Amino acid sequence: MKVNLQEDVLKDHNLAAKYNREIFRGNQTLVINLMSSPGAGKTTLLEETVKALAKDFSIAVIEGDLATDRDAERLRALGIKTVQINTVGGCHLDARMVAKTLPEFDLDDINILFIENIGNLVCPSGYDLGQHHKVVILSVPEGNDKIPKYPVMFRRTNMTIINKIDLLPYVSFDVEEAKKDLEAINPEAQFKTLSARTGEGMEEWINWIKDAYSECAKQ
Amino acid sequence: MKVNLQEDVLKDHNLAAKYNREIFRGNQTLVINLMSSPGAGKTTLLEETVKALAKDFSIAVIEGDLATDRDAERLRALGIKTVQINTVGGCHLDARMVAKTLPEFDLDDINILFIENIGNLVCPSGYDLGQHHKVVILSVPEGNDKIPKYPVMFRRTNMTIINKIDLLPYVSFDVEEAKKDLEAINPEAQFKTLSARTGEGMEEWINWIKDAYSECAKQ
Repeated sequence: MKVNLQEDVLKDHNLAAKYNREIFRGNQTLVINLMSSPGAGKTTLLEETVKALAKDFSIAVIEGDLATDRDAERLRALGIKTVQINTVGGCHLDARMVAKTLPEFDLDDINILFIENIGNLVCPSGYDLGQHHKVVILSVPEGNDKIPKYPVMFRRTNMTIINKIDLLPYVSFDVEEAKKDLEAINPEAQFKTLSARTGEGMEEWINWIKDAYSECAKQ
Repeated sequence: MKVNLQEDVLKDHNLAAKYNREIFRGNQTLVINLMSSPGAGKTTLLEETVKALAKDFSIAVIEGDLATDRDAERLRALGIKTVQINTVGGCHLDARMVAKTLPEFDLDDINILFIENIGNLVCPSGYDLGQHHKVVILSVPEGNDKIPKYPVMFRRTNMTIINKIDLLPYVSFDVEEAKKDLEAINPEAQFKTLSARTGEGMEEWINWIKDAYSECAKQ
């Protein structure tokens, strides 16, 4: 089903989020909103995730960036339908921007849509895009103190992924402390550690997405 | 000289920036606004910078964070007068917040004031705090593509520091490409590479600050 964009949706964030959510539900498309600081590895994680899922699922991506379509090109190189949103200075995506891109996808043919948000550990957390899951990626070189220091993001997301665990020998990062800090802020949140680059821990993340898809397709 | 805060300054960003600038000039206090993504190493760089400068200069720090005073405590542990600003969700400091802290310092006894901004590669770039220099720190694990992807920050800063060069053997980061990308966006900007952790490249940065202080004290 091709989406016809309703004009009034573009006037209101909450309406747009609701509209997106209904469209995703109607098409049984699982939608995951990926957030992190710049350089925490969202695009690399997405590339490896797509490679692991592409034989069983039809996947699409919305790429948010201030400027350039470099990340979109990386996903397109894997044969994935990718729509780029350039915010030209804006520090987060919003539901209206996402709604505008939906007519470009054949959503009833898409099982999983990933939205890569702007690299920012502050602004994107407050914006509901209509997604099923909000996932925040914290990379090992950033330091485990980022969870208490940026609590809003970690409180408002369903899952925290600690990425780049291959760098643990070279920098100071206490995984157990990160886990405890997350539990204190958001006891319901899931916590996973992985390295998108080496593949360590990827299987658990991929299985979680598969389960989330089954859950979404049931509804 | 103790600063008496003028109430009208708090109503207008531009007025506050001008006010701060005049106060800094009147006290011959060099002010450096440090910006970066979360976890790029601002506080560690600041600790090492303070250690290198403290025997010759009187130093103070304004620490910006969404939450916690962990970073301020790290600087206070070095005997440095540090005032914490918690923005409680706000993604950048502004000149009014800085103006409000000034009565807490004896500025005529302070040679160099560092302002550590909120960890964010987008929002802080647009806000003039009245500083002499805006310095952005990009850390090696973030990847060299961040300069073209977050151009506004790199265009609006006087200096780009590539930090954590001790991690160059373990991650993909092209220093020459970063330098070229910066030159394309901001040909006037200075470019330095260092590791605050190992000390490599620190001397050049410290010398640059000393020169900047001499320049500021002349005026």
